[in-house]
Amino acid sequence: MTVTSPPPSTPEGYAAAVVDILGALAYAELSAFSQLAADANMAPTHQLKADVSALAVAEFLKYEALDERLISLGSSADEAMTPFTAAFDGFHKRTQPSDFLEGLVKAYVGDGIAQDFYREIATFLDPDTRDFVLTVLAARPAKREFIVGAVRSAIDDDPRRGGRLALWGRRLVGEAITQAQGVIVERDALSAILVGGIDGVGADLAEIGRMFARITDNHTKRMERLGLSA
Amino acid sequence: MTVTSPPPSTPEGYAAAVVDILGALAYAELSAFSQLAADANMAPTHQLKADVSALAVAEFLKYEALDERLISLGSSADEAMTPFTAAFDGFHKRTQPSDFLEGLVKAYVGDGIAQDFYREIATFLDPDTRDFVLTVLAARPAKREFIVGAVRSAIDDDPRRGGRLALWGRRLVGEAITQAQGVIVERDALSAILVGGIDGVGADLAEIGRMFARITDNHTKRMERLGLSA
Repeated sequence: MTVTSPPPSTPEGYAAAVVDILGALAYAELSAFSQLAADANMAPTHQLKADVSALAVAEFLKYEALDERLISLGSSADEAMTPFTAAFDGFHKRTQPSDFLEGLVKAYVGDGIAQDFYREIATFLDPDTRDFVLTVLAARPAKREFIVGAVRSAIDDDPRRGGRLALWGRRLVGEAITQAQGVIVERDALSAILVGGIDGVGADLAEIGRMFARITDNHTKRMERLGLSA
Repeated sequence: MTVTSPPPSTPEGYAAAVVDILGALAYAELSAFSQLAADANMAPTHQLKADVSALAVAEFLKYEALDERLISLGSSADEAMTPFTAAFDGFHKRTQPSDFLEGLVKAYVGDGIAQDFYREIATFLDPDTRDFVLTVLAARPAKREFIVGAVRSAIDDDPRRGGRLALWGRRLVGEAITQAQGVIVERDALSAILVGGIDGVGADLAEIGRMFARITDNHTKRMERLGLSA
């Protein structure tokens, strides 16, 4: 879908682009909530169910903050996230965990990639919006570290799981980056901000390439922490 | 299951009974979270999905507060809720909504009954625990009123839904009260507190009967608010 809106170099165009970015982020959070809440139902213990549910809740509280901000900008999450629902729903459909362990790995590496990506995007925004996005992302930090222990001990119990989960992690990062690139290309406002920036201080294509390189580097470190080869 | 613990008239027995009650409440919240998060996936719009997800999140935050309290009492939600998981899982299994509307009615009348029941139970506890329970129940009040509009407009669209949902509401209250009575009877500590109270100021069976009568009265009012005959 190509959106014909004023270019982001105009105030109206820039405001529309901010709504676009916050809308994408809102649906990322809302769909992550649904996915994690569903994953929690596969948990083998009530403690793990509560731990994964807590991750879901952390995502939803970020969604709420984004909705409030969008309302203050004259839009709403409901409205602003509409252009992005198909892409995110497609991502979750293509990366539906087949068991609890796959869900844990997705929660750990998928959420990590998403957070990195939005932090990178934030650097292209005006200071006020940037601070807002960074505050939302840092609020109620998800307690994901229990995943490291759970995944490592599952691999200790049955080392064959390591190979399967490593493949799963590679698929997740591939799908996530494909989706992120697709969203950027499809949404004129988003790519104009990334390439043109505000005040013309944007990224060139080489910089966008480096951004994705940084994101995959961090992904590799997260996979290593889980005991998986990236 | 009958638990052999010191009678609630002793300090150890009373402490164990409080852990029991908070454990039941914790699992009520955690299982309500799962149920509502699953219901949210049946929502026809993203706004309704977010609204129902917010109800789920409100339940989970209460679970977290209960877990913290249980940890401060030397237990944990994970431990204390174990005796109650079968009863609550059974309730949710027997009252699985078959569509989004049934989920909404369950969220409205089921949560209402649960809140009433726990408020009644709280009156039998020591002031400190009672204040804690009432504060948790009142925290982040769930914004359930959107359900009234959604259910009423669905019945306006197709009045046959009114009869079906009224039957559903009656089944919910029947199952909820059966379950609550079962939990009280099975758990010695719980029934001893209700009947014996602390300092011997408990309820007699007539008072417990009046308690259930108050709960069903409130249920009838909630059904009427939804436009359903109770």
